[in-house]
Amino acid sequence: MSSLGITVKKSEDFSEWYSQVLVKAGLVDLRYNVQGFVVHRPWLMRIIRAIYRFFEEELEKTGHEPVLFPLVIPEENFEREKEHVQGFKPEVFWVTEAGDEKLERRLALRPTSETAFYYMYSFWIQSWRDLPLKLYQSVSVYRNESNTRPLIRGREFLWIEAHCAFSTHEEALRQVEEDMENSRKVIWEKLGIPFLFLRRPPWDKFAGAEDTYAADTLMPDGRVLQISSTHDLGQRFAKAFDVTFLDREGTRRHVWQTCYGPGVWRITAALIAIHGDDKGLVLPFSVAPIQVVIVPIYYREEDKKSVLEKAHSIEEMLKQKGYRVFLDDREEYTPGWKFNDWELKGVPVRIEIGRREAESKTLTIYRRDTGEKKQIEEAKLLETIQELEKSILENLKTKARRFMESRTVEARTPEEVVKALKEGYLVKMPFCGREECAMDLKEKTDGGKVRGTEISFKEGDYGKCAWCGAPARQIVYVAKSY
Amino acid sequence: MSSLGITVKKSEDFSEWYSQVLVKAGLVDLRYNVQGFVVHRPWLMRIIRAIYRFFEEELEKTGHEPVLFPLVIPEENFEREKEHVQGFKPEVFWVTEAGDEKLERRLALRPTSETAFYYMYSFWIQSWRDLPLKLYQSVSVYRNESNTRPLIRGREFLWIEAHCAFSTHEEALRQVEEDMENSRKVIWEKLGIPFLFLRRPPWDKFAGAEDTYAADTLMPDGRVLQISSTHDLGQRFAKAFDVTFLDREGTRRHVWQTCYGPGVWRITAALIAIHGDDKGLVLPFSVAPIQVVIVPIYYREEDKKSVLEKAHSIEEMLKQKGYRVFLDDREEYTPGWKFNDWELKGVPVRIEIGRREAESKTLTIYRRDTGEKKQIEEAKLLETIQELEKSILENLKTKARRFMESRTVEARTPEEVVKALKEGYLVKMPFCGREECAMDLKEKTDGGKVRGTEISFKEGDYGKCAWCGAPARQIVYVAKSY
Repeated sequence: MSSLGITVKKSEDFSEWYSQVLVKAGLVDLRYNVQGFVVHRPWLMRIIRAIYRFFEEELEKTGHEPVLFPLVIPEENFEREKEHVQGFKPEVFWVTEAGDEKLERRLALRPTSETAFYYMYSFWIQSWRDLPLKLYQSVSVYRNESNTRPLIRGREFLWIEAHCAFSTHEEALRQVEEDMENSRKVIWEKLGIPFLFLRRPPWDKFAGAEDTYAADTLMPDGRVLQISSTHDLGQRFAKAFDVTFLDREGTRRHVWQTCYGPGVWRITAALIAIHGDDKGLVLPFSVAPIQVVIVPIYYREEDKKSVLEKAHSIEEMLKQKGYRVFLDDREEYTPGWKFNDWELKGVPVRIEIGRREAESKTLTIYRRDTGEKKQIEEAKLLETIQELEKSILENLKTKARRFMESRTVEARTPEEVVKALKEGYLVKMPFCGREECAMDLKEKTDGGKVRGTEISFKEGDYGKCAWCGAPARQIVYVAKSY
Repeated sequence: MSSLGITVKKSEDFSEWYSQVLVKAGLVDLRYNVQGFVVHRPWLMRIIRAIYRFFEEELEKTGHEPVLFPLVIPEENFEREKEHVQGFKPEVFWVTEAGDEKLERRLALRPTSETAFYYMYSFWIQSWRDLPLKLYQSVSVYRNESNTRPLIRGREFLWIEAHCAFSTHEEALRQVEEDMENSRKVIWEKLGIPFLFLRRPPWDKFAGAEDTYAADTLMPDGRVLQISSTHDLGQRFAKAFDVTFLDREGTRRHVWQTCYGPGVWRITAALIAIHGDDKGLVLPFSVAPIQVVIVPIYYREEDKKSVLEKAHSIEEMLKQKGYRVFLDDREEYTPGWKFNDWELKGVPVRIEIGRREAESKTLTIYRRDTGEKKQIEEAKLLETIQELEKSILENLKTKARRFMESRTVEARTPEEVVKALKEGYLVKMPFCGREECAMDLKEKTDGGKVRGTEISFKEGDYGKCAWCGAPARQIVYVAKSY
């Protein structure tokens, strides 16, 4: 049995820990025979679906509607926006044949769908009445990445892409804030993953955007992971795809656009990595495929009936209250094996029912996040579960935020920057704003990247750039990244 | 306005009616610049999602778990099962390039995923403890079809594929019945679409299957549409992919497999085609994106406030009861325009609130399926809506079943078969069971196909084959098909 558990500590070898959890908790299988393409197993799919549902709810509350665009995009669509094609073409997969025949023109597997959506937007948007247009799709996208890592960087990965069009730039900028708020409601409030929402420096923006805003979370190894992003596309695509509308005064104008991509795959990676511990996954109720597992314990055949009866009645009661409950009455596994397996899979609460519990009006409750075990009166079960649901999420949030805060340091000198990045810290520092300074920093710190300023940040006089000593115009975050 | 409505009668030109409904009700857009690939608009996506949810619920209730396999399948996987590769290879799309480089081996876009799933099943299934294994995925698949038709035949289309493995053939055959029951629960009970569940003749089975069972519904033009199918794969794929298990006695054996494909796209097509009428879509509550639309009507500014107040309070009440309600208070459209538009889109119930309704405790209610309008007391609204939900579904079911029954005839002679097929009937007839007879029938009736026997059917002596006069062993259904 112990060979099935995680064999390294998360704090000592995060990379190995992460790889082991993914496989041992039954999330992915990496043995599929196309490199960089992952098989998503049921436990992972159920978590991912819950995350999708949260985002879709928020998007619909804020007026977005679901669509589904074709997987394939003609090459000519890409060519329309110059920066976009430069950014994405090198990693596009191309469909060139069907059956025994060569296609007349090759078709891209969508790496992202601006050039599919906006081709249609030129038909759909004619008048001010058609605006704002807010659509999204929940799909996989395809990029021929190297250095793939499950849920972090894949050749096929899951996300949502929302594409909005407005009559003014002001509305588009408000959409950026709405997207940040949507991310906060799901990623922080439901999943307990803290993040910074940063405006990327101009050299690190989405290909084809005027500006990119992105959510960065901090992984246990001190590297940041971008888990969602919103792009202010200005009127670039509108001009490339001729998306115009007649305003109320009868003037034809180009729309202003944004696109928003919650990285469902990467959010799942962050969830696993940030909340997990040396025993495996730790899941909040919000996404746990099983929220409460009931393990009956009996060693003598004469106890079996009363133990199982009680287990079934508890199961029934919690199911009726809407909880996702599983009574693990499989006879081919021991209680100890089950404990380990459900801990590895991150089930938030375990109820143990043995002879003692069956004979009294009590239950033994184990919570996965703290490892605490306690006896409660059976009458207080529902109340206890409700409390645990809240308190587990609060605990995960608190721990995650504390971790991120404790791994963030301010730096004023190149020496401090180098030391902090080496030790796996997220660095906050005054910065001159120049690309060449950022590139120099990156080179000399083995990959430290200027991630950007906070979205509400205003430029000003911030003393000297921590890296080059020139006058600083910004306070930026710097970190190594995935 | 009238130019936006459907301009032909469904009974007179079904094909044109169907094309107009798809576009005018805002379901699909066919202007995307890759032929055979369809843009799914919000109204369609919401219907499709509801259908997915129903199937996923039934599948999970019967022990299936969700997975997601890669889109791409290596050519070598296809080659493993001889009939399968012959059946599917001619229509496979191939990815051959990434960026500027040629891939070492070409990758198929999944036309169906047996050869992806079963490659992994050989890892996942080792012992009797691993069985039964029941997994499914909700995805798009890709086939280079000609004669594409939106929601009926596409190069990209949406479905579910469930893949099960068992230790005995008996269990596999029980799965076929479970699949039929799942189809019945969703397609008939929730959506009101009647179908026959038929065992296909050997020459019309899925490539690689021992037997194919399929649900056929009858479209308004008298052609049948296959909307779901289950395949008894026997041990063919198990042998091709070496999927074996150690049984309880320690003997290594090949598994028995089935796969089940509810055709979500085609079920949606049947829903539109069968329930729709000359005004457009007619949707049951189960899948209607909006179940109740409230249209406020006022011609004098002084009535506006009281009308809108009442409209809002009705909206609020119904929302709290869990209905999908939309208050259409847009000022840029007239009530008449709104009536037509929501009728075209198939919203099952409309509540009209004018000055009269605002001044009294009454409401005017319109039901889309029958076109009836009546006044009710406001206090009876909830009760009325609950009744309508049931009665609309019952009415759609009854009409659909009556249509299918009225378009089914028995035939005993070639003349009767020819006449019935020409007039758009589904024919029930004694049949000899020979492929050459079926091919002769098909050729001489301009496409009439032997669709198979009912699943519970037992072979016996059924007089003479209606087509060739030889002794008949079966009663089969024959029809032209999509």
